Amino acid sequence: MELGFIGLGRMGGNMVRRLSKAGHQCHVHSANQTTREALAKEVGTVSYADIGSLVAALAAPRVVWLMVPAGEVTEQVLTELGQLCTSGDVIIDGGNSHFKESVARAQMLAAKGILMVDCGTSGGVFGLARGYSLMLGGANEAIGRIVPILDTLAPGIDAAARTPARDGGPQAPGEAGWLHCGKPGSGHYVKMIHNGIEYGMMQAMAEGFALFASAGHAVVEEDYRYDLDLAAIAEVWRRGSVVSSWLLDLGADALASNPTLDQYSTEVADSGEGRWTIEAAIDQRTSAQVLAAALFARFSSREKNELGNRFLSALRNKFGGHPSLSSKG
Amino acid sequence: MELGFIGLGRMGGNMVRRLSKAGHQCHVHSANQTTREALAKEVGTVSYADIGSLVAALAAPRVVWLMVPAGEVTEQVLTELGQLCTSGDVIIDGGNSHFKESVARAQMLAAKGILMVDCGTSGGVFGLARGYSLMLGGANEAIGRIVPILDTLAPGIDAAARTPARDGGPQAPGEAGWLHCGKPGSGHYVKMIHNGIEYGMMQAMAEGFALFASAGHAVVEEDYRYDLDLAAIAEVWRRGSVVSSWLLDLGADALASNPTLDQYSTEVADSGEGRWTIEAAIDQRTSAQVLAAALFARFSSREKNELGNRFLSALRNKFGGHPSLSSKG
Amino acid sequence: MELGFIGLGRMGGNMVRRLSKAGHQCHVHSANQTTREALAKEVGTVSYADIGSLVAALAAPRVVWLMVPAGEVTEQVLTELGQLCTSGDVIIDGGNSHFKESVARAQMLAAKGILMVDCGTSGGVFGLARGYSLMLGGANEAIGRIVPILDTLAPGIDAAARTPARDGGPQAPGEAGWLHCGKPGSGHYVKMIHNGIEYGMMQAMAEGFALFASAGHAVVEEDYRYDLDLAAIAEVWRRGSVVSSWLLDLGADALASNPTLDQYSTEVADSGEGRWTIEAAIDQRTSAQVLAAALFARFSSREKNELGNRFLSALRNKFGGHPSLSSKG
Amino acid sequence: MELGFIGLGRMGGNMVRRLSKAGHQCHVHSANQTTREALAKEVGTVSYADIGSLVAALAAPRVVWLMVPAGEVTEQVLTELGQLCTSGDVIIDGGNSHFKESVARAQMLAAKGILMVDCGTSGGVFGLARGYSLMLGGANEAIGRIVPILDTLAPGIDAAARTPARDGGPQAPGEAGWLHCGKPGSGHYVKMIHNGIEYGMMQAMAEGFALFASAGHAVVEEDYRYDLDLAAIAEVWRRGSVVSSWLLDLGADALASNPTLDQYSTEVADSGEGRWTIEAAIDQRTSAQVLAAALFARFSSREKNELGNRFLSALRNKFGGHPSLSSKG
Repeated sequence: MELGFIGLGRMGGNMVRRLSKAGHQCHVHSANQTTREALAKEVGTVSYADIGSLVAALAAPRVVWLMVPAGEVTEQVLTELGQLCTSGDVIIDGGNSHFKESVARAQMLAAKGILMVDCGTSGGVFGLARGYSLMLGGANEAIGRIVPILDTLAPGIDAAARTPARDGGPQAPGEAGWLHCGKPGSGHYVKMIHNGIEYGMMQAMAEGFALFASAGHAVVEEDYRYDLDLAAIAEVWRRGSVVSSWLLDLGADALASNPTLDQYSTEVADSGEGRWTIEAAIDQRTSAQVLAAALFARFSSREKNELGNRFLSALRNKFGGHPSLSSKG
Repeated sequence: MELGFIGLGRMGGNMVRRLSKAGHQCHVHSANQTTREALAKEVGTVSYADIGSLVAALAAPRVVWLMVPAGEVTEQVLTELGQLCTSGDVIIDGGNSHFKESVARAQMLAAKGILMVDCGTSGGVFGLARGYSLMLGGANEAIGRIVPILDTLAPGIDAAARTPARDGGPQAPGEAGWLHCGKPGSGHYVKMIHNGIEYGMMQAMAEGFALFASAGHAVVEEDYRYDLDLAAIAEVWRRGSVVSSWLLDLGADALASNPTLDQYSTEVADSGEGRWTIEAAIDQRTSAQVLAAALFARFSSREKNELGNRFLSALRNKFGGHPSLSSKG
Repeated sequence: MELGFIGLGRMGGNMVRRLSKAGHQCHVHSANQTTREALAKEVGTVSYADIGSLVAALAAPRVVWLMVPAGEVTEQVLTELGQLCTSGDVIIDGGNSHFKESVARAQMLAAKGILMVDCGTSGGVFGLARGYSLMLGGANEAIGRIVPILDTLAPGIDAAARTPARDGGPQAPGEAGWLHCGKPGSGHYVKMIHNGIEYGMMQAMAEGFALFASAGHAVVEEDYRYDLDLAAIAEVWRRGSVVSSWLLDLGADALASNPTLDQYSTEVADSGEGRWTIEAAIDQRTSAQVLAAALFARFSSREKNELGNRFLSALRNKFGGHPSLSSKG
Repeated sequence: MELGFIGLGRMGGNMVRRLSKAGHQCHVHSANQTTREALAKEVGTVSYADIGSLVAALAAPRVVWLMVPAGEVTEQVLTELGQLCTSGDVIIDGGNSHFKESVARAQMLAAKGILMVDCGTSGGVFGLARGYSLMLGGANEAIGRIVPILDTLAPGIDAAARTPARDGGPQAPGEAGWLHCGKPGSGHYVKMIHNGIEYGMMQAMAEGFALFASAGHAVVEEDYRYDLDLAAIAEVWRRGSVVSSWLLDLGADALASNPTLDQYSTEVADSGEGRWTIEAAIDQRTSAQVLAAALFARFSSREKNELGNRFLSALRNKFGGHPSLSSKG
């Protein structure tokens, strides 16, 4: 089907490629001229220098997919689209917006009869080949209109062996690789929690592999000191173990080419969704010990909590006379 | 090849089935007569009423695989085998023994020339069909002797797509689905950390799904309250998402047949390895915030930390006059 | 000096008592007629049935102290005061408002020339005798105007032995027991973090005392099983130990009259400030592992995270065949 | 009374001073000749070059107090004392031994009729003036024999205002500042948990003060950015606040002379007892989220968990194409 596509970065560009390959006609825009022209040429479509031209080129009722950075850029593009689009149009925000902002935006656009869909998109750079896991919030009518796009972008039911309890039964919601989660905001809510879980799983693995590295440390008793091959462990776990997972596959790949991982930074970034997950846990009075610990471990990796640690050393020095003075002191 | 197999429970029984199907000749023993006779009949082999007869029936140098409960039973069986076996024999402890005990046992048996291998075995009840992920510690000579068994029990290199960085290259250690991790104890060490990671990954998912359930709670503001289909979310994530994993597959299966999970207990058991992982972290002075939080969450699920919570309520009552008295008080 | 005082609950009532005893003339209001009349009679002052009469009775420039519940009530009273007060008046919000709300309110009132002070107040029911620890944010001019009140409400420099490094020196900021922390919002910010720390300290003690209770449990090896007198331990620590603290004093008191604490609830409430502290940590990208763990432990005490724990049991059942089915299943 | 005292370091030396000042006759030994001779001269007593001479100089039944480093040194000294002492002698281990070792040692010495007392000693360098909080395990007979020493070393009942619920009543166990906790090992058990709590309380404060420091960070929104005086906050909290405590007093002292704490190390040491507390929690299946988080925060302060963090960056790079490569990569 015909759609507008705004935002042609790492995610958006590949999504346009996947859509075009399946025969959908994407009218594309990116603020970057080189990017939009190169992609248009590559997939054989038309690019537009501004959003107004793109909207004008689409026949109403339109479908426009956004894949731009969450926050200010999304706000700005949605505001512009809100002015340009007309009643009956569907706008999908496929980025990582906060679900509460998506609720507010859906309400704002609904006032003009425009249907907004918030879509959490997982899959990263592998999505082009593997398909994207899509979590959607919005009105039934809007979702109904974009099913052909969703079916193309999602990995499809065959991307995984069917769950035993469903085997032989009719296709259930979610099995296509996309899911209408509920009313506005629910798609971004589910994606937010997805990322929260992702942080927890990653940190669990990171701590485990760190325990492999430290198993060889001087502090360990000689008899129990091991010099382990982390890349090989990742490989053996990929086959038949309880922890086999896509994240482990990625870890195995990184370790295979760089066994010490020394080409990767010790400072770990975080994006909004991991942080928002903890705020949601607090809002909902639901314990999230592991998800919070995972987030804070990332903060610690970046800033060394200098004042807090100095405070501890100061107390130890005061009560115990421990020589915890800084070597710089 | 010919081997003795002691312990025919959920794990051991299936391992004998997988070995027998591949043509290995298993001489089996279980303390339970019904179990051993039924299995022997099923796979067409001989069962023995006691360990002595089993050892006597094997030609030296022997290979004996143990799949019995860690702790006392393992200690007892290994002591008996230590008396019955002779120099050059190989004994594999495939259970969940503490790696420090495995080191001690290997040293004790080595004094008699017996080669002990500690083997961490992952795969659970699915191992029969899927194969077992095997992590081994011990002397090269011992591992070399049992490769045919390992190749049968493990899932094999084709059980997973090859890691991109290895594609086209020679088969690397671990890719067969079994790995010689290092000297005695290292197999059980790697398996221990595997389970520690497993706890962390499980808890990350559990907290995430709990946040789906609590998204509908009264405490949440009306606009952001969602009634989510947990089973469908698990399905959509199984296809293309970053958190796709075998544990998620199992969760999807449980949710498919029991969407509220109300047939499962709210009290979560734990076994030795999750606990030992934290002790290892402490021994190695390596932070394991997430792995520890996951373990303690299981403790909390079982005992409600009554004294500790009452202590908090008592303090609140004392300093704030908060009416935190027990309804039973 | 003369001031209006609105809110005569557990905290407010005692503050009026402390102020009146020191000769300040409090004009008081509470929505509850019985409360306001009883207190006015007790301390020999005038009570007002509505805020308008109270403001009218004060000579400009006025000082009005609020001690009402954070959230809606505070919002409502401040809005009313904003309409009634005039340029040069000082309004102090002594409750537990979110510091960001205090910033917004200060800005709103500043537009009319009214000076708002946000004041975090610690001390609880003991404040009447012990004095209140006061943390203030706002303009210098406003703080300067209310020093006589602050000096009365605060415990004063003699409430604690002087810090050794300050001994013999001039009185430093904070030593009076009140502190002008900085610009608007900073008083409530400091009080928020105070409560966050309080949660952490309380939880540390609660976990320690829980370990005393569980030292007698059946799971502990016989040789290391102890039947400890928790009340006596609290007493011995009150004298000379590193953990001696006011919270320990309160715990000792609770344990002295109810050694098992069974008259206190196992469900622990939390108020806004503990939750907001974690949100601030997230905003500031600062790790707060202990403060978050303490907050989530309270959530866990109240709701048993049923879905999450059932999810764990379900996974264990699926991969290990563990009999983790609910007894209700 | 007469006693032998072995170990004259920071703790032991001051304890001998406090005992001597009260008229007890201490026969002292330290491996360090200068130390023992200087102290003997200072307090007017006799020092011995070896343990044999010290034991020989004491009339049976003897009392010998040990204040030597836990672990090897304690083991060695106790072994020697076990050979030199005779039935009826009392030996007190006042150091930070693991309670399980104390149980084993008490059993070993009991075989010879020697009574061992394990004594947890809190108070640090301030104990000389403030008295020591003493937690004791061992036989009633042994404790009964050393009451005069305990009464001297402990702060005494007047060191703290009596707990309200006890006011006017008879002196209760613990109020003297020393407590017979129970059978062998219980003294060191209680001291271990004391230190576990201490870690938790310290970390709670450290995280709170870190949030004061980061309140001024660039990442914080301008309106909510505060430049706070940490030393002044510590002072105001010392008077009337809920978090007032001895640890806060020490923090206030450190901040008063070094407001940025930059003369203190960002790497925080830990000793055995904090680690053992978590192991006890695991043994007793009791959740200790805060105590574990506090311990691991110290580990993190020292080693930057390099492998673990690089693992996280590697995964982010793999799935998201995030530029998380090390600047050194």
